[in-house]
Amino acid sequence: MGPERRDRFAAARVARLATVGPDGFPHLVPVVFVVLGDEVWSAVDHKPKSTRELRRLRNIRANPQVSLLVDHYDDEWTRLWWVRADGRATVVEGGSSGTDAVPDDVLDDVLDALAAKYPQYAADPPLGPFVRVHVARWSSWQHDAGGTVTA
Amino acid sequence: MGPERRDRFAAARVARLATVGPDGFPHLVPVVFVVLGDEVWSAVDHKPKSTRELRRLRNIRANPQVSLLVDHYDDEWTRLWWVRADGRATVVEGGSSGTDAVPDDVLDDVLDALAAKYPQYAADPPLGPFVRVHVARWSSWQHDAGGTVTA
Repeated sequence: MGPERRDRFAAARVARLATVGPDGFPHLVPVVFVVLGDEVWSAVDHKPKSTRELRRLRNIRANPQVSLLVDHYDDEWTRLWWVRADGRATVVEGGSSGTDAVPDDVLDDVLDALAAKYPQYAADPPLGPFVRVHVARWSSWQHDAGGTVTA
Repeated sequence: MGPERRDRFAAARVARLATVGPDGFPHLVPVVFVVLGDEVWSAVDHKPKSTRELRRLRNIRANPQVSLLVDHYDDEWTRLWWVRADGRATVVEGGSSGTDAVPDDVLDDVLDALAAKYPQYAADPPLGPFVRVHVARWSSWQHDAGGTVTA
């Protein structure tokens, strides 16, 4: 499913983001996201969060290697599939004052895409920070194909 | 949702397993699984696999720290929740000849539980190897609770 791989990933409502802590422990959290080209963007909600919630950001600042997974489960196992995006992440602060500031028009595109995909974000745009993942490899598997295919 | 946390996790059909490679890269794959006490067990399918598919096993042998995530997505975000299981994994070979052999009755319990949860495993029991995760911490979050609660 070569060129479909990224589209399948992009169409999913939720992905799981894996980061790695300085102690070598993996950290896993579900994220809503958009795909723009070969980048996956997600926002950290601007609701009150415990410090634990920001662990993904601390991890990324120390080790940018991340993995994102979209999977489809079905009790009929021949319908199983997943798509994985491996790459390097950066933390992008909202506005243009962050340590990894991006041009306003890039962030505008991200906010537009998030709002188009998730009505909640149209009503209440995320302020950031954002996690920007430059995908180096899209991988996928489906049950009846019998193995992993890598782009 | 203190005592419900593990039950909620256990009832899910699929979880995502994060391991970490010697290079510090996270690796992410969906798994079917059972929970027995504070252990999460999954089997590696005995279908032909590329070497890539065994990366989770190589990673665990080098770094036993893993994370497992079950999440529920709903377009109504107040219904979002996830449960995470962090712990140490070992690779258990099928039969009693593995490097981390377990008593036959333990493996019998695992196979019974897998077969009870997944009919495919009743018809065609997995031969292993198995990934056994001793969960050190169950964490959970739900949207309307506003933050993470840790057991």
